Amino acid sequence: MVTKSQECVNFGKSVRGYREKRGMSQEELAAAASIHRTYIGGIERGERNPTLRMIYRLAKALHIEPFMLLSKPDRQSA
Amino acid sequence: MVTKSQECVNFGKSVRGYREKRGMSQEELAAAASIHRTYIGGIERGERNPTLRMIYRLAKALHIEPFMLLSKPDRQSA
Repeated sequence: MVTKSQECVNFGKSVRGYREKRGMSQEELAAAASIHRTYIGGIERGERNPTLRMIYRLAKALHIEPFMLLSKPDRQSA
Repeated sequence: MVTKSQECVNFGKSVRGYREKRGMSQEELAAAASIHRTYIGGIERGERNPTLRMIYRLAKALHIEPFMLLSKPDRQSA
């Protein structure tokens, strides 16, 4: 299901931003989080509404704290 | 389904803590977030694995930023 809520879009941008900062490919992040690569793509496009436990798995694979994925990049850079 | 993962238990404690800090009952929080009261109970007991959008709804109803529900209360108070 494609939700594309603003919350999911912002979350996806955060995941992509931290992934690229670490120089990881979607495949590498998927493997580190034990998630299918297409799911990572859906997350980054804001099409997925991940659960709390999924947020923790992604954060762990990115070596960051889970709350960091929910902070607003627009506000931080403004 | 009762998951009771540590992530969900910590999240539930955060929700309960912020709800009590605002002097809200579970019924009041449920109404403010347009969620059934029994769902709030399940969240606070750590039995639910909420989605990102649900985390945002709860945070809005509690008048806090979503990332605040994912910070670790144990670490903050230690």
